[in-house]
Amino acid sequence: MAVARTVVVKAVNAGLWSLQRSRSRSLQQAQTVRALSAIMSPPSKAVVYEHHGPPDSVTRLIELSPVEVKENQVCVKMLASPINPSDINRIEGVYPVRPQVPAVGGYEGVGEVYSVGSAVTGLSAGDLVIPSPPSSGTWQTYVVKDQDMWHKISKDSPIEYAATVTVNPLTALRMLEDFVTLNSGDSIVQNGATSIVGQCVIQLARFRGIHSINIIRDRAGSDEVKERLKALGADEVFTESQLEVKNVKGLLSNIPEPTLGFNCIGGNAASLVLKFLRQGGTMVTYGGMSKKPITVSTSLFIFKDLSLRGFWLQKWLSADKAKECRDMVDYLLCLAQEGKLKYEMELVPFDNFRTALDKALGKLGSQPKQVIKF
Amino acid sequence: MAVARTVVVKAVNAGLWSLQRSRSRSLQQAQTVRALSAIMSPPSKAVVYEHHGPPDSVTRLIELSPVEVKENQVCVKMLASPINPSDINRIEGVYPVRPQVPAVGGYEGVGEVYSVGSAVTGLSAGDLVIPSPPSSGTWQTYVVKDQDMWHKISKDSPIEYAATVTVNPLTALRMLEDFVTLNSGDSIVQNGATSIVGQCVIQLARFRGIHSINIIRDRAGSDEVKERLKALGADEVFTESQLEVKNVKGLLSNIPEPTLGFNCIGGNAASLVLKFLRQGGTMVTYGGMSKKPITVSTSLFIFKDLSLRGFWLQKWLSADKAKECRDMVDYLLCLAQEGKLKYEMELVPFDNFRTALDKALGKLGSQPKQVIKF
Repeated sequence: MAVARTVVVKAVNAGLWSLQRSRSRSLQQAQTVRALSAIMSPPSKAVVYEHHGPPDSVTRLIELSPVEVKENQVCVKMLASPINPSDINRIEGVYPVRPQVPAVGGYEGVGEVYSVGSAVTGLSAGDLVIPSPPSSGTWQTYVVKDQDMWHKISKDSPIEYAATVTVNPLTALRMLEDFVTLNSGDSIVQNGATSIVGQCVIQLARFRGIHSINIIRDRAGSDEVKERLKALGADEVFTESQLEVKNVKGLLSNIPEPTLGFNCIGGNAASLVLKFLRQGGTMVTYGGMSKKPITVSTSLFIFKDLSLRGFWLQKWLSADKAKECRDMVDYLLCLAQEGKLKYEMELVPFDNFRTALDKALGKLGSQPKQVIKF
Repeated sequence: MAVARTVVVKAVNAGLWSLQRSRSRSLQQAQTVRALSAIMSPPSKAVVYEHHGPPDSVTRLIELSPVEVKENQVCVKMLASPINPSDINRIEGVYPVRPQVPAVGGYEGVGEVYSVGSAVTGLSAGDLVIPSPPSSGTWQTYVVKDQDMWHKISKDSPIEYAATVTVNPLTALRMLEDFVTLNSGDSIVQNGATSIVGQCVIQLARFRGIHSINIIRDRAGSDEVKERLKALGADEVFTESQLEVKNVKGLLSNIPEPTLGFNCIGGNAASLVLKFLRQGGTMVTYGGMSKKPITVSTSLFIFKDLSLRGFWLQKWLSADKAKECRDMVDYLLCLAQEGKLKYEMELVPFDNFRTALDKALGKLGSQPKQVIKF
């Protein structure tokens, strides 16, 4: 983190000053009122953005001053946090729900309780916790939040899975539940099968006896990718070009036509999902990696009776769903701990954040999920 | 019908010979077995097609020989039958459900009972009936079907509405029921508002206190069209070009954002329906008059939570829904009889079928629904 101090100076001179000033002011107040009794967080190294824009130009790595840990608050030393596409969209300012700037990046992660306020019960130093529902500001070394915001997880949870469980695996779990009643023996089809959601869909479907038909991009090494996905439990894996045939269903051996499809790409890759769906099937869009729209013929709606829906995890992250959300996280972490749910990630030291960001932005070709390790 | 006899000769020499032969054979058999007791239909003038293809070149007007009216059958003298887009698609061979060729055109209509078989109860000469569920072969002067296929309607039913009630008005009625629970004060949006379905949607919505936002094409006389639709009960009518603004919802005065939209056009006209829909809204496609697909951005699915569905009346025309279907037809005909449900039609003598077909094919510009009067 060689550039950190320089950046701090620049940042303080810019809009971040107000953020730091409010921290300082609350610190002064706390000191006045509670004198020596106030518990303070350590200073925190954070990835901050003052304006919305391209993440590689608007983010700065700075050090934030200590803040008070109030009586019902918990200070957590962050251990790991991923760079998700939605984190990038939040920084770009194109995400419908986004924190006010200046803001610290990141939305999910895992940490260890560092200190607790005097009124905190149920959490103590050393506990492994995740923010649940997830919330902004996980790309920093110390996070202070109300105790209710933290969910204590098993100390045996694998750190990288705990850091990433709330966004992508939960999306896969919900999408298999929220749209169509699937029974053992049914099948689903998805594009973007190498994404974390895609890998989780394969495995979670498999546990329930549901077959998966998977579509991947044409690229060097696609045979190897196919084998990897099949090792996770994929029944069929096709590259897009393999599906440029009239009757894609003729390619399926002993798998029923899928009643549910997932699309995270758009454009032609979405049309390929539609091609597989059975009469009355549903395609759920949860991402648009190609930035291309979805185009559908009239007859697919009228005569094939297809439904097109969308999935946004946000509706599962509201306060009234907190209990359900935590139960699902525990279930998924349990699977991960047992080695039954796995996906590719690259753990990256915080000092290499810039490179991790470039990889997450796709500037260095196809890369596994980038997870910052603090 | 000056050309009828010539066409008969040609048709008998072609594929239609088999159709006529089977009628002749059954006639001979009937004559042998039941001698003079057999009731025969009159000869029937019919619009027949031997091959699928462009309706204006593959259809022929011919005279079919008399057929036996069996003991449980009813011979109906047809009074009127419309040319619907789905009739055209059936002849073209692009409709998923189509009769085997050679076939008589037409799918719905109204007629008067001409004669009944010896075992028929509940229907007698002079009764007004419609085929319900509708079935192929209504473009002819005499139709013989089993008694169960005919639904007796009030003798006071307006003929042109009885002829057209089962396809378009029923579509409007079902689409307002089958997708979203609408309450009084809610609103819907639709394109193709001048179609019969469109006009029925406006009126049926109005009866339930539901506002309608209507989109029409830009064309000469659009102000007059707007007034006509408003006279039917439309709350708002916009031409497509009026909606080329960022915030279409700003154009609405005192109408809530619609939760349900209907699309029968595709392309840009479908996108305009989507623009109006509220968060979580549903667009139902029931036609594709522009022959252009529907294009939707990823974010409309994910963040606006829109659902895209399709409607095909066919599912309401199965034997197990016959009772419900007839009840709805009675309801709609009652409204028509009271002048509460109306739409534009042009009644055309059967002799002018060719011109009516050209109009229905759009070869003579925008025209009202063509209804053949026998």
